[in-house]
Amino acid sequence: MEETKKTYLLTPGPLTVPAEIKAEMLRDHSPNAATHMAMTSAIRAYCLEICNGTDTHACVPIQGSATYGVEAGLHTLVPRETSRILVVENGFYGQRLAEIATGARFSVSVLSLPMLPLPTEADIEAALEADPAITHIMICHAETGTGVLNPVAMVADVARRHGKELMIDAVASFGGFPIDAAALDALAIFISPNKCLESVPGVALVVARRDALEASAGRSPAVVLDLHAQWRFMEEKGAWRWTPPTHVVAALAKGCERHRAEGLEARAARYRANWRRLVDGLRQRGFETLLPDEIAAPIIATFKDPADPAYDFRSFYAAMEKRGFIIFPGRLTAAGTFRIGVMGDLDESDMTLVLAAIDESLAEIGVATEPA
Amino acid sequence: MEETKKTYLLTPGPLTVPAEIKAEMLRDHSPNAATHMAMTSAIRAYCLEICNGTDTHACVPIQGSATYGVEAGLHTLVPRETSRILVVENGFYGQRLAEIATGARFSVSVLSLPMLPLPTEADIEAALEADPAITHIMICHAETGTGVLNPVAMVADVARRHGKELMIDAVASFGGFPIDAAALDALAIFISPNKCLESVPGVALVVARRDALEASAGRSPAVVLDLHAQWRFMEEKGAWRWTPPTHVVAALAKGCERHRAEGLEARAARYRANWRRLVDGLRQRGFETLLPDEIAAPIIATFKDPADPAYDFRSFYAAMEKRGFIIFPGRLTAAGTFRIGVMGDLDESDMTLVLAAIDESLAEIGVATEPA
Ligand SMILES: Cc1ncc(COP(=O)(O)O)c(C=O)c1O
Ligand SMILES: Cc1ncc(COP(=O)(O)O)c(C=O)c1O
Repeated sequence: MEETKKTYLLTPGPLTVPAEIKAEMLRDHSPNAATHMAMTSAIRAYCLEICNGTDTHACVPIQGSATYGVEAGLHTLVPRETSRILVVENGFYGQRLAEIATGARFSVSVLSLPMLPLPTEADIEAALEADPAITHIMICHAETGTGVLNPVAMVADVARRHGKELMIDAVASFGGFPIDAAALDALAIFISPNKCLESVPGVALVVARRDALEASAGRSPAVVLDLHAQWRFMEEKGAWRWTPPTHVVAALAKGCERHRAEGLEARAARYRANWRRLVDGLRQRGFETLLPDEIAAPIIATFKDPADPAYDFRSFYAAMEKRGFIIFPGRLTAAGTFRIGVMGDLDESDMTLVLAAIDESLAEIGVATEPA
Repeated sequence: MEETKKTYLLTPGPLTVPAEIKAEMLRDHSPNAATHMAMTSAIRAYCLEICNGTDTHACVPIQGSATYGVEAGLHTLVPRETSRILVVENGFYGQRLAEIATGARFSVSVLSLPMLPLPTEADIEAALEADPAITHIMICHAETGTGVLNPVAMVADVARRHGKELMIDAVASFGGFPIDAAALDALAIFISPNKCLESVPGVALVVARRDALEASAGRSPAVVLDLHAQWRFMEEKGAWRWTPPTHVVAALAKGCERHRAEGLEARAARYRANWRRLVDGLRQRGFETLLPDEIAAPIIATFKDPADPAYDFRSFYAAMEKRGFIIFPGRLTAAGTFRIGVMGDLDESDMTLVLAAIDESLAEIGVATEPA
């Protein structure tokens, strides 16, 4: 295969996908052929395996982006009439969860917390005690809007003590951080193929507790977002209810294989090394991170804009893009920052190139940095 | 690029995608990069252009399969409280429309017609007169379940005369048959990338009448299926509301380019030549088509199973698959048949290979055919 010049997507995903994964998309598959059904079933089994959900949960993929999985989970797993959802939010993707739950016309209570410090047991307990109607808690694990890694095990403890159901947006963390579906007793864990699984976007995956999934027949008011129906169909026929993005599925099957071969811990260590290199490098150049290292998810780093008046994100972005590196602006919830993701087909040698491109780009736009 | 052995997907889609289109998926794109936004906007403009919708309609893509487009169109464009939808069905995909509209909790009336003859003006008029509450008509254009091409211009005339809105499932026909959104005054036309546009699955496109789209803010009870919100977001920011399947979008942009270069008429003529060759070839071998040629959509041919007791679809399928050709079973609505699609990266030389593979496969499973 011709070597296509690598584009570095240093974003919170979609990211720099390994060439071996993209090469899977050069072949056409019929969704009903045995080979394609085997890919789907391997993906489903692998996602359960890495979150210890095999005995207790089912993995249901649906067509769409990760947000589709979140909304499908709500419509399918949450009884609308008797439920009230507490969304614990401390950033852009927490707010997104509240937006989806509200837009999907659930009864929602939002616990808005600052970016720092991390949510505490007392925060969650107080919210539950103030509003006994709450039945479900929803929280984002790796909050890519800021880079905060939220303490989901603590939230799961509180939820269990209070008899509440727990739903976790693990979109950015799944595959890069240990998550134990059984130990957390999670109702639902929302997964993306295009973050730590390093594959391409086009499907969402939901790990749902099997008892709840079984009890959810006919509940979803949106046919294509009905996880129960998709689940039954897949269990019975091995295929997807409607045409899956066959090339995307083939890529993800390869993504799962590669994840297994590397191992979650080695992958996490590689990301951490990338992140360490990047953060140290930029600190040497006078940049400050938005977060202290201890609470940062080492898959993305958020930096404060330099004080130099010559700095402007658009020019910096353009200078980096010209060199083949795509970076990301800060989210509204963290204005005056920019973000650099370190997930994907990247290792420390790539981070050396990233730092060199940053030096060149800052020089080009006339921003002075401390000598590295 | 290494030549990947061509897999012939002789199905109603996903189909045999040109290598040039799949090669687009070897590159990663950031959804917010100018290049990717330009692809989205080129796709949207091209879909309007080929259905004469530029002045009257908007094209809104959403993540998912074609069925997502249908359901999003319903939730967004049809006021639930005051509407009743007449679904005119004469095959599997007509039934699917009824299934989606009913599952999405609309008031639905189904006009079930036999596969033959084609729906007539009198059929539709009678249904409208019998049920004055009907506000919308929904019909499938190329009914891939049987291969029937439904007379949508006639249905549009009836709809206009009776003041009803019209929604057309043009999933299998768009790009292969002329469709005039303005002349039909269609409320919505549902499109797939992986039929006559010859690209890969992963998005749905809806061509919606602009006045109706404008009036639909806040209507959809499913956030991710809200076409109005996706439309406004795309108009304002050029990007998708949630992560698009970036590789699939890049492929479709190339698919649109290739469609423009070939031209709709030449593409239709190529499919027709493929279909002619296949149908003539199989008739020479003693097979019968389900439909007379005049009413068949020349993108797929449905054949009756041979009478020979040695014939069995699974063995025939397996023998064909072994040779690299994927065929399709008949749908429930047309039992005792099998289907062969002729869309995609196929020309008459490919059809020669298909006929040779059919000969070999039938010989292998011991089915006698008339000498070709
Ligand atoms: C933590 C988190 N949640 C949800 C999403 C939304 O995913 P999508 O854009 O695929 O719908 C993202 C995407 O970046 C994310 O990082
Ligand atoms: C006429 C027609 N309508 C709808 C569909 C459904 O499309 P999807 O499976 O992409 O949801 C198909 C798929 O073959 C079709 O042929």
